[in-house]
Amino acid sequence: MLQAQQELLDWQGRGCSVMEVSHRSPEYVEVAQQAEQDLRDLLSIPSNYKVLFLQGGASAQFGAVPLNLMQSEKPLAQYIHSGHWANKAIAEARRFGEVTIAGSSEDKGFTYAPAESALKLDPAADYLHYTPNETIGGVEFPYIPDSESLGVPLVADMSSNILSRPLDVSRFGVIYAGAQKNIGPSGLAVVIVREDLLDRARPEIPRILHWRVSADADSMDNTPPTFAWYLAGLVFKWLKEVGGLEAMEELNRRKAEKLYAYIDGSDFYSNPIARDSRSRMNVPFVLRDDSLDGLFLQQSKDAGLLNLKGHRVVGGMRASIYNAIPEEAVDALISFMDDFARQHG
Amino acid sequence: MLQAQQELLDWQGRGCSVMEVSHRSPEYVEVAQQAEQDLRDLLSIPSNYKVLFLQGGASAQFGAVPLNLMQSEKPLAQYIHSGHWANKAIAEARRFGEVTIAGSSEDKGFTYAPAESALKLDPAADYLHYTPNETIGGVEFPYIPDSESLGVPLVADMSSNILSRPLDVSRFGVIYAGAQKNIGPSGLAVVIVREDLLDRARPEIPRILHWRVSADADSMDNTPPTFAWYLAGLVFKWLKEVGGLEAMEELNRRKAEKLYAYIDGSDFYSNPIARDSRSRMNVPFVLRDDSLDGLFLQQSKDAGLLNLKGHRVVGGMRASIYNAIPEEAVDALISFMDDFARQHG
Repeated sequence: MLQAQQELLDWQGRGCSVMEVSHRSPEYVEVAQQAEQDLRDLLSIPSNYKVLFLQGGASAQFGAVPLNLMQSEKPLAQYIHSGHWANKAIAEARRFGEVTIAGSSEDKGFTYAPAESALKLDPAADYLHYTPNETIGGVEFPYIPDSESLGVPLVADMSSNILSRPLDVSRFGVIYAGAQKNIGPSGLAVVIVREDLLDRARPEIPRILHWRVSADADSMDNTPPTFAWYLAGLVFKWLKEVGGLEAMEELNRRKAEKLYAYIDGSDFYSNPIARDSRSRMNVPFVLRDDSLDGLFLQQSKDAGLLNLKGHRVVGGMRASIYNAIPEEAVDALISFMDDFARQHG
Repeated sequence: MLQAQQELLDWQGRGCSVMEVSHRSPEYVEVAQQAEQDLRDLLSIPSNYKVLFLQGGASAQFGAVPLNLMQSEKPLAQYIHSGHWANKAIAEARRFGEVTIAGSSEDKGFTYAPAESALKLDPAADYLHYTPNETIGGVEFPYIPDSESLGVPLVADMSSNILSRPLDVSRFGVIYAGAQKNIGPSGLAVVIVREDLLDRARPEIPRILHWRVSADADSMDNTPPTFAWYLAGLVFKWLKEVGGLEAMEELNRRKAEKLYAYIDGSDFYSNPIARDSRSRMNVPFVLRDDSLDGLFLQQSKDAGLLNLKGHRVVGGMRASIYNAIPEEAVDALISFMDDFARQHG
């Protein structure tokens, strides 16, 4: 952010911002290509995958996925239903064809990831979609579903856990992520798509959502969100500098373990998620006495701990400990929680 | 831009950027609502129009327009073909239904706006679409087509001339504009849509493009491009401070008249556009001797005059004198052009 500020009025000594430069200029194209290369390096993306930088966030991809992958004749997709965001993706897909549910955790209020052995995979499906990390529920899958071995492309919405740890991209057909969690600002989505999946789109797909069109134009078929792309590039560079995804995984594991350990050891706070499915990125927790919620939120805000309120659909609290959150911030949160519990427990 | 820089690390004394704040926070919602109100004030937008702040730029609206407005049974739209951008909009609409051309300037290489009296308007059309200012061609319509009196909604892509002068919004059904010319950074589109047009969408429209969905959610059905929206708000405030669109029109008229007068008085440069259709925003010009193009571009760049190269599809030069370009920059351009002509004429 400091670099972005320093460069905001004078980028590369040009007397203007990167925002004011044409996306077709050689200078900007270099920024764009370097960002892609750094992302490829971080995730070791195989060469038969395209990387797209698009507008519309993950929500645009909820529609893009069925329009790019569902057949016109007898469209059939499978989805794993793991909570709020999976549900949004399912609702959009149902508008374009049949959707069957390969697994669901609805029976226990989406407090766990459906077990791999319980999945009912259908080899006739056009693809299988899942949400590896449910941002609001705080559920993260401890495994990667193996639909690919049945010839069914695996599609994952990684908006809230991409880049949080190393990843074997070759096990996926499509990975997409809205940028505003672990990548950069809102207004950008990254789509990583295997080349054999670029040419299955339906005729009625809007051009803006067509992966082949974007791939052939290096994501510049229309004017891209240049500033967001540039900021994402700065984040990728920073991730490489601090040791890449191995270092990030170690840090994220430490942050999450500390926070869950504190919550589990407390009788004032609790986390409702099955242990094997707990998210390293989003840690929801509730106070034993929810009449203290308002006071907790006010005092935590006063202490500089922002955005702890749980999503309006689930209530309670949620600590989102993305890559950008340093370990000290988690320590400060635990310390605040402990003080609060002592005063009100 | 200076304000954006000053606030980049510490917005409203919160110790973080507006980029890092949730779009659901009261602080951000206030920014978003104020931006909309300022735009409504600038354009005197009637209360029966919704204002949407969306992702995907104008190109996303090329698909959104037919998907929101073309009937499913016998879809028929009319377009005026005035050059490069109209052509893109037409190509996308044809993928969703029949398109007839209400007027075209193709016969003379898109160097004029088709005359109002020559338009062949069809009262059976679902809408009439036109491009009031062709960014690349440098053609601006001197009139507003009157399809509304036939009961046919008028749709305009105002990406490159919105906010350049006062506008009677009530003569349009839909106005849309990518932000990266006169509004703010890339990655944002503004859509102004009359309420009676919100409920005509086809069943197969992706949710992200559905105007009714965005209108009902105050453009926050999914995470909006928060930083671009905030920057747009700063631009709207600036426009109000410098005297609104009347002042901007006067300035833009002066800038354009100066530049065209210089070109017309020169036998070294020329502009190919019919006088009544010349754009106040984009002034294309060619050198009598195009073997000097490369030298002209190099020397103008050295003189700090950036981005004068014409679009790759038309060649030559193009001065884009949007709202943000001060009169002194036009003076400097004319002075440079005159020096160059004296040396090489």
